[in-house]
Amino acid sequence: MEKTTIPATKYGLTGKFRAKAGQADKLTAILLEASRQVSAVKGIRVYAIGRDPKDENVIHVMEIWDSKEDHDQSLALPETRALIGQAMPLIDGKPEGVALEMVGGLGVD
Amino acid sequence: MEKTTIPATKYGLTGKFRAKAGQADKLTAILLEASRQVSAVKGIRVYAIGRDPKDENVIHVMEIWDSKEDHDQSLALPETRALIGQAMPLIDGKPEGVALEMVGGLGVD
Repeated sequence: MEKTTIPATKYGLTGKFRAKAGQADKLTAILLEASRQVSAVKGIRVYAIGRDPKDENVIHVMEIWDSKEDHDQSLALPETRALIGQAMPLIDGKPEGVALEMVGGLGVD
Repeated sequence: MEKTTIPATKYGLTGKFRAKAGQADKLTAILLEASRQVSAVKGIRVYAIGRDPKDENVIHVMEIWDSKEDHDQSLALPETRALIGQAMPLIDGKPEGVALEMVGGLGVD
């Protein structure tokens, strides 16, 4: 298949979590804390948390980073690992998401 | 099911488009033009375009707006309608996506 000619300049991630029944607010609060922490980390541009009005247990995260390396380094931080440890027991099933090559737009350029 | 106690402050959209074979770059260019235009529109915060490195025909858009009303008004603009008209013939099947109630994070607060 034809390769793209439009260069990627940033790294992105979509994330979808299903909270266990009754745990969506608690999981949301952890993700909001994660956003507060990560907003001081090198390379972060967007770390936004949204709820699905049609499904109270579903939480989405939009992430945009300068690079995959910056993102991966943030995962190694002790405070990040601690939050992941708090979040995992509240999550039902496997989180979904896609790593993206961000090519432009408001929030990328 | 328990209603959330965490208030939404913004409006978000995830979007996933599958381009017809060989049309992904052209569709990406239209979405990039849409982002340029929409970045001057009231209420827009993020309109970011990403490609799926595992599938050359898939393009994602992350949107964050001050409100649903601001987003809906942008769809009525003649230039937006023109771009939608250019994009639709390049899209294979129905676009996917979720409207979100954004509750916070970097890019929302």
